Amino acid sequence: MGEAPPSKEHILCLLPFPNNQPILDSIIKKHPNVEIVYKQFSYQKGTRIINKEDIPEDEVEKATILVTLGYIPTPQLAKNLRLIHLFSAGVDWASQTPIWKETNIPFTNSSGVHAPQISEWVVMQILSNAHKQKLLLELQKKHVWGSHADIGAVKDSVGQRLGVLGYGAIGRQAAKVAKAMGMDVIAYTASPRKTPESKKYTDYTVPGTGDPEGLIPSAWYSGLTKSELHNFLSQSIDILLISVPLTPQTRHFLSTSEFSILSSQKAFVINIARGPIVDHDALISALKNGDLRGAALDVTEPEPLPKESELWDLENVSVTPHVSGIGTAYFDRSFEILEGNLGRIERGEGLWNLVDRRRGY
Amino acid sequence: MGEAPPSKEHILCLLPFPNNQPILDSIIKKHPNVEIVYKQFSYQKGTRIINKEDIPEDEVEKATILVTLGYIPTPQLAKNLRLIHLFSAGVDWASQTPIWKETNIPFTNSSGVHAPQISEWVVMQILSNAHKQKLLLELQKKHVWGSHADIGAVKDSVGQRLGVLGYGAIGRQAAKVAKAMGMDVIAYTASPRKTPESKKYTDYTVPGTGDPEGLIPSAWYSGLTKSELHNFLSQSIDILLISVPLTPQTRHFLSTSEFSILSSQKAFVINIARGPIVDHDALISALKNGDLRGAALDVTEPEPLPKESELWDLENVSVTPHVSGIGTAYFDRSFEILEGNLGRIERGEGLWNLVDRRRGY
Repeated sequence: MGEAPPSKEHILCLLPFPNNQPILDSIIKKHPNVEIVYKQFSYQKGTRIINKEDIPEDEVEKATILVTLGYIPTPQLAKNLRLIHLFSAGVDWASQTPIWKETNIPFTNSSGVHAPQISEWVVMQILSNAHKQKLLLELQKKHVWGSHADIGAVKDSVGQRLGVLGYGAIGRQAAKVAKAMGMDVIAYTASPRKTPESKKYTDYTVPGTGDPEGLIPSAWYSGLTKSELHNFLSQSIDILLISVPLTPQTRHFLSTSEFSILSSQKAFVINIARGPIVDHDALISALKNGDLRGAALDVTEPEPLPKESELWDLENVSVTPHVSGIGTAYFDRSFEILEGNLGRIERGEGLWNLVDRRRGY
Repeated sequence: MGEAPPSKEHILCLLPFPNNQPILDSIIKKHPNVEIVYKQFSYQKGTRIINKEDIPEDEVEKATILVTLGYIPTPQLAKNLRLIHLFSAGVDWASQTPIWKETNIPFTNSSGVHAPQISEWVVMQILSNAHKQKLLLELQKKHVWGSHADIGAVKDSVGQRLGVLGYGAIGRQAAKVAKAMGMDVIAYTASPRKTPESKKYTDYTVPGTGDPEGLIPSAWYSGLTKSELHNFLSQSIDILLISVPLTPQTRHFLSTSEFSILSSQKAFVINIARGPIVDHDALISALKNGDLRGAALDVTEPEPLPKESELWDLENVSVTPHVSGIGTAYFDRSFEILEGNLGRIERGEGLWNLVDRRRGY
């Protein structure tokens, strides 16, 4: 009685995936003040660039919430925008835009949505390397029942140490699986996590997964300086998982001196974050001179990885085309974050997965 | 004072692996009444048959304990044998021998030793299938940065159900990792496990792994009849792990009618136990007609799998040459069981991993 009806939310979704209307319908059912326009676009062949004619400028002008991947409008077009929900965990592609730099329109990201899937890709790469999956597949292709001598002995994960550089949603779920495999896990974060409270993860976590309480690591390390990083890398790490956001501080965070430290265990290095965090020339050298046992890269610099890159053919290197996060559950879970935040907006609560522009993630 | 010195233990090791003398030395140090002879043999090319001239018959006659894989002496030669420690988890290869049938010489097996490693092979196969590892490797080989459309969406494991047929050491460790990945696990055992006590695993478990308390499954099923098996298979199983021992009851335990039940979820079927548990003609039909999503087989019938078998080339089928258990830790852990049992013999306690001849495992 007497309350103003909530203002209409015009949600525009601009995504490179087909729509799943039942998900949108369930949101509209819970939030009758919402209307949703969904537009699927295609990337220009082989790139992540959107065709300009795929952008419905009139819809962008009208939108109060934009759900997007790969497109950020100009501030001039974003007349009514009150929230931009990014369909990616990384925000680097959005952080160079005028809206990021010149406005206070909040961004939320999809951090946590693909944590189970990306951590599975990580585990698959660890195991494929240790269990010689490439060789096994080659034998199968040739119909050869290999001998034990052909394959050699496999070292299982029990007692090996996983270093998780960036203990966010993905790192926590990878840690959970690694721990179940009998590994020891140590964690690295930008800021110190000395109290039980500070070790918690408070953003969206897929139920039944992750380490929301921060109980898995046997030790925590932190910092953004090279000496703090080097202290962490010196802790007898067998497998290094790079799962930090790309920020000015983390660009080429891993280079010659870091791989040299990791050579004590001939570590296996995994990057599921962003290519430029790794100095690729240094990585190739470390792989070729035997400092590293191998690497698994779902991200490279540049992307696509050029055809002539040595990485494609190096032994014990796995390269995949930035696909570790593209899964059937991505869509539903990312909209689960949006739906959770619609309720938070209506109730005047803080948002899940709110991006901190200053930190850059 | 006045106690008889313990009788000398003559341990003969006949194994197809190189020796690791420090392990043997540490056993001798703890048990000064022990002497150990180690002899490595080779299988006849491409088979698991030992060259007869590799058997040191005089040493076999003298041995009180035989550590072996692939060779069981005649009762006539086993004049002094008091224990046979098998370097495998499966005992079917030993159960057809006169010593098994005509004597009471105890057998211990190496159950639990390769549980971490085989469970890793299982997880690798689940993930390689779901994440399209074959396709990813082909793209890499061609230096192709595939598009999302090339690869398609991946379904992660969260909420999927793993049915573990045979909840022993391997099944428990696979369950532990699957649960960490967000899966639901249900267990099947030969005899009912209705009490917390009966759900426990009391044989050797690699520290930090497995489910020794039996806390992971959301439901337990049991029996050796087809109707009990069918009830288990009807529980919406997405992935079936076959980890039962081969016994007369489990020969062709999985055949046409079982795969038909599993078709409701188009289950992925994994066999790390013994080939003959699966009716391979029925399996091939179920794979070809789409009842099953795929299969991963480290064991086949017969072994080696003939070159002309259709299994080699079926889509979504992975065949490996009975290698999931051949690891660097196998040797140390199997001798850890032997060492534990030497102490038990000296103290007159019951043995770890004692084989029950009646049950056949």
